[in-house]
Amino acid sequence: MNNSKPVRPELRERVMKVVEETGFQPNAVARSLVNKETRIIGVMIPDISNNFYSNLIYGIDSVISEYDYSLFLAISDEVVEKELKFLRLFKEKQLDGVIMASIHFLEGHFQQLQEIQVPLVVTGHDLPGYNIPTVNINNVQASYDATAYLIAQGHQKIACISGPLWDPPCGLDRLGGYRKAMRAHGLDIHDGFMQEGEFTAKSGYEAMRKIWEESIRPTAVFVATDLMAVGVLNFLHDQGVRVPEDVSVMGFDDLEMASLTRPMLSTVHNDPYMYGRAAAEQILKQLRNEPVERMSIVPHDLVIRQSVCVIGK
Amino acid sequence: MNNSKPVRPELRERVMKVVEETGFQPNAVARSLVNKETRIIGVMIPDISNNFYSNLIYGIDSVISEYDYSLFLAISDEVVEKELKFLRLFKEKQLDGVIMASIHFLEGHFQQLQEIQVPLVVTGHDLPGYNIPTVNINNVQASYDATAYLIAQGHQKIACISGPLWDPPCGLDRLGGYRKAMRAHGLDIHDGFMQEGEFTAKSGYEAMRKIWEESIRPTAVFVATDLMAVGVLNFLHDQGVRVPEDVSVMGFDDLEMASLTRPMLSTVHNDPYMYGRAAAEQILKQLRNEPVERMSIVPHDLVIRQSVCVIGK
Repeated sequence: MNNSKPVRPELRERVMKVVEETGFQPNAVARSLVNKETRIIGVMIPDISNNFYSNLIYGIDSVISEYDYSLFLAISDEVVEKELKFLRLFKEKQLDGVIMASIHFLEGHFQQLQEIQVPLVVTGHDLPGYNIPTVNINNVQASYDATAYLIAQGHQKIACISGPLWDPPCGLDRLGGYRKAMRAHGLDIHDGFMQEGEFTAKSGYEAMRKIWEESIRPTAVFVATDLMAVGVLNFLHDQGVRVPEDVSVMGFDDLEMASLTRPMLSTVHNDPYMYGRAAAEQILKQLRNEPVERMSIVPHDLVIRQSVCVIGK
Repeated sequence: MNNSKPVRPELRERVMKVVEETGFQPNAVARSLVNKETRIIGVMIPDISNNFYSNLIYGIDSVISEYDYSLFLAISDEVVEKELKFLRLFKEKQLDGVIMASIHFLEGHFQQLQEIQVPLVVTGHDLPGYNIPTVNINNVQASYDATAYLIAQGHQKIACISGPLWDPPCGLDRLGGYRKAMRAHGLDIHDGFMQEGEFTAKSGYEAMRKIWEESIRPTAVFVATDLMAVGVLNFLHDQGVRVPEDVSVMGFDDLEMASLTRPMLSTVHNDPYMYGRAAAEQILKQLRNEPVERMSIVPHDLVIRQSVCVIGK
């Protein structure tokens, strides 16, 4: 109806006729019937109140808005039924592309993902064996680097608070990087030095309490998310333990709050805005029929602030 | 096409025929041509990386998703051209409702808002003289209450760091509540005790530096946003000034970080999640042709933690 593309004249006539007779204004809904494009990208995230995902969306939007695509937001609340419902809705609404962030993948998803037949990118998960482009940080390597940095500062008794183990990137992968670094440097991991947190500051606080009750105390702690690391700093503050003089703390994520704590948190820079941009670029490539990488790795680096100190061996 | 509503048989036949002949699957796009509903609510916000707006969206989504509406997200980056573009897009895409948060209203908007002819709610702004439902906190009263609380603790030399004055709710209104409380209690405002911040922790840090350079120093500071208050706490920490023993600090917003600072921040609870829910309820009422309030006021209250102490007069 915007006369922008060649269509069969009969088809145009028929659509225009329905549109006229039903009294609809020429509009984007009717136009998308002809063009087969809605210029809308669907984005599914588990939680919008988490700053990581809001910045991921910011990154996606910063790329797609330049190309006049808009954003359809689906918040799954980590409920599998909602995830599946949104996947059906994405297909039904004929979105031009779909980005899924850190979804709880089950077999049901993979079936639907293959049925959906639109450009698709998954972030925060690796999907070995599936031909779906993913955007990720290398969580194992980044955690290895963070732990190796602590070791390079002279620390040997290093504890780790991981994400929940049901979340592979923040749980298994980040714990795995820590263990790999300890092993590679010939260091023992004491009993009770590996604690599992749950993404909240409170869970970091409680995990640090458990570590602190052990007979052997660590001189440094690697914490798999900054939010939990804030809980660790607060536990140590409330106990009168000095950071970094008595205990060094290394975070992961580089949230805004990492530079607002006192001492300022040394951490791994993990930029959801860049994730978002990379994911959007992969979608645009698919829309242009350009080749895409099966795995895009977003680079990480260490941000050294004030919460880690050198100790004698 | 889903046979859910009575339509004229000729109309149904004609639409179905086009759909068949063009090879389209029955889908939401075609269906919305018949039903005149897309079941999508458009939400326009200035900034998704700001936790306030991401929680606002969380509140909106928690209500509309129950009624099977989905969310079309428009991030304006505080650029007026983008705001106007999205308004046009909302109309073109025939969204069922529109929620606009803290937009920079200009005359151009009001014209478009009147043209858009869909259920509409504006949050974060009051729109006197326009028949557009708004959802707001009473910023003047909340700031009055926060300042009066400091006065009740014995403080008389009280400074204020406001939001930027181009933002009426966080700038003029919150500054206004502070001034009103000082005046009502017969207290002078010293030169340099009113500083304008810019929403960031850094701007709070710098504003507090200016206040601290004055010949008369305050015993308490009311800061119009928690993020700026974190900057104030950090400035005082870096100067070796104790909070609250030497200076009391009162924030505004009750962000997650307010309970993560040390000392924990006393502040005004201002819940964007509840804003979002209230705004969504107002949209749903309009969709059901129920009466709506022109102004909905979301209640506020004071959250007393550790950053304010009692002093002798």
